[in-house]
Amino acid sequence: MATAGKVIKCKAAVAWEPNKPLVIEEIEVAPPQANEVRIKIVATGVCHTDLYHLFEGMHKDGFPAVLGHEGAGIVESVGPGVTEFQPGDKVIPLFISQCRECRFCKNPNSNQCDKGWAAERPSIMSSTDTRFTCKGKKVLQFMETSTFSEYTVLNQMAVAKIDPAAPLDKVCLLGCGVCTGYGAAVNTAKVEPGSTCAVFGMGAVGLAAVMGCKAAGASRIIAVDINPEKFEKAKVFGATEFVNPKDHNKPINKVLSEMTNGGVDYSLECVGNVEVMRSALESVVKGWGVSVMVGWTDMHDFSARPIQLIAGRTWKGSLFGGFKSKDGVPQMVKAYLDKKVKLDEFITHNMTLAQVNDAIELMKHGKCIRTVLNISPQ
Amino acid sequence: MATAGKVIKCKAAVAWEPNKPLVIEEIEVAPPQANEVRIKIVATGVCHTDLYHLFEGMHKDGFPAVLGHEGAGIVESVGPGVTEFQPGDKVIPLFISQCRECRFCKNPNSNQCDKGWAAERPSIMSSTDTRFTCKGKKVLQFMETSTFSEYTVLNQMAVAKIDPAAPLDKVCLLGCGVCTGYGAAVNTAKVEPGSTCAVFGMGAVGLAAVMGCKAAGASRIIAVDINPEKFEKAKVFGATEFVNPKDHNKPINKVLSEMTNGGVDYSLECVGNVEVMRSALESVVKGWGVSVMVGWTDMHDFSARPIQLIAGRTWKGSLFGGFKSKDGVPQMVKAYLDKKVKLDEFITHNMTLAQVNDAIELMKHGKCIRTVLNISPQ
Repeated sequence: MATAGKVIKCKAAVAWEPNKPLVIEEIEVAPPQANEVRIKIVATGVCHTDLYHLFEGMHKDGFPAVLGHEGAGIVESVGPGVTEFQPGDKVIPLFISQCRECRFCKNPNSNQCDKGWAAERPSIMSSTDTRFTCKGKKVLQFMETSTFSEYTVLNQMAVAKIDPAAPLDKVCLLGCGVCTGYGAAVNTAKVEPGSTCAVFGMGAVGLAAVMGCKAAGASRIIAVDINPEKFEKAKVFGATEFVNPKDHNKPINKVLSEMTNGGVDYSLECVGNVEVMRSALESVVKGWGVSVMVGWTDMHDFSARPIQLIAGRTWKGSLFGGFKSKDGVPQMVKAYLDKKVKLDEFITHNMTLAQVNDAIELMKHGKCIRTVLNISPQ
Repeated sequence: MATAGKVIKCKAAVAWEPNKPLVIEEIEVAPPQANEVRIKIVATGVCHTDLYHLFEGMHKDGFPAVLGHEGAGIVESVGPGVTEFQPGDKVIPLFISQCRECRFCKNPNSNQCDKGWAAERPSIMSSTDTRFTCKGKKVLQFMETSTFSEYTVLNQMAVAKIDPAAPLDKVCLLGCGVCTGYGAAVNTAKVEPGSTCAVFGMGAVGLAAVMGCKAAGASRIIAVDINPEKFEKAKVFGATEFVNPKDHNKPINKVLSEMTNGGVDYSLECVGNVEVMRSALESVVKGWGVSVMVGWTDMHDFSARPIQLIAGRTWKGSLFGGFKSKDGVPQMVKAYLDKKVKLDEFITHNMTLAQVNDAIELMKHGKCIRTVLNISPQ
């Protein structure tokens, strides 16, 4: 392409400081270096983790930055040593890498690649390796992905090549939320056919977890949320029952225990709240119940009584649904194209990059499932 | 036997109230009722859980009681409906039952039988079903077993028949501590060959966990204790390295992480302290590390940061080492007779029932591994 090897000037939504609206700026995106890929972002979801960083995580040294980590795009150019990708390839940027060489990549039970940005600094973004500048300042790449930009640059170990038939304004959701929830049920909890599941929180991740439970063959899937408007959507993805903790004057784990003769087989916490994590653990049956933390938070400790685990419960966590990213995302894209996985039903709003602050407001107030920002034409 | 069908008067160590020495009293032991077995106790270990109840648990409604839950004996008589046992059978009383009928017994992954005393009141002993009286008062059966007595009565679903060749003054340890630690490694953690393990706490349970790790084929077994005198004993059971947290001015999880390139594959907490539980979790490697709570405490919450689990760690608990009790105990007795499991090496002291308070003092001050009380001739 004509832009290969050159600095690209393009639009991006820059977070200059915590708790302030993003600002659409012209930024410079440097050419990809060795083993890197420069990507034209076509579409991106707006995920709660973006919000979390901007409003709650608030590490001051994490700014200025370009947020966004749930995108899809087209390869614009590649750096030296890149043979896996060519300009024109449809790709999904990955906030968790898969180098295929480290001991975590080589272990079939782990997706926690040791080479990516997250291995070093899990809660804040990489700084030394950003390819972005704006007004003469380095701008950080949030989770390396920075999909709230017309162009971004990633190491090839954090890029998944996907089916050319994939509609990027839909499959972008596989860059985070849908894989995270679906995989937490299928890969981390390993939900078994005929089992009973409870999913806490009916945002996109929770709905995807419901979909994962259904795909795994669960016979009862209990959706838990304090917003009763979420139930219709939960049904679409496979929920069989709905419980609003506000409708009960006893703890939700007691309610679920009574509904299920002692507790569910699996629970998935898709909120990111340590109190809900405890409820989710306490809701699984003694003996073999498995509870999985899916929602992200790192500001408080979670806690419970030892007897909860000693009585035979297991507490796990899931990052990106346990998917090895480069392997898993193309498979999920294929599952979508084969109509085995739903994506369209998550998307409640479509907006432009210029409307990113509106999208953030919608999410802050729980008024959407997923907003997709259409950034460039496909 | 001449005593069948009659009340037996015998000696027992009665705990009249919390925090007071036990008192050797003459008690009356009623004949076994339907499905019950009356057992002459030959020997019993003194386990920290007895201490815990007496000095720390301190539920006032748990007294007066006869403690002791790590015993072995001989069937004296059986109640109506009992066909599995006959007078003269060597048996081990089980503090966790196996009814073989409930959904937990039928599930291969659980040993949390739903029929026993513990299902209803996990932290205090059964009250309505005691067969003990002393000075006209009902005396409770701690964990149903009450092995600090010359005779006791249990439901047959909480009694294991063992090989007649078994020396009862050794295999009594399989009634609690040794199965608990060994099984936590083999059944709950499911330690894999070639793996690296850390065991926190070198009491009998921790030493048994070390033995379990070795039996499972672990290549490195790191024993952690603040008492350096424990290392020689730990070596006997298979420990390959020893770490005393007091020798380091950084957290033990950092020490272990440096020794193992990021953390151990498995950790087993055999202390019963929520801070140690947290250290044990933080000591396992991200991605696939499994930490198991084995030590008992129910007075405080355990806690950790969500990222510890989200990064791919698993937190589990183990009760009686995950063994289905009636099935597992006879197998462990056989393993001892076949010299595949050590027991003699745990026993540092032998005493009489009259010396039970001395045995408790030894344990309180960490001066023994296991004291066995020889109660009746074999």
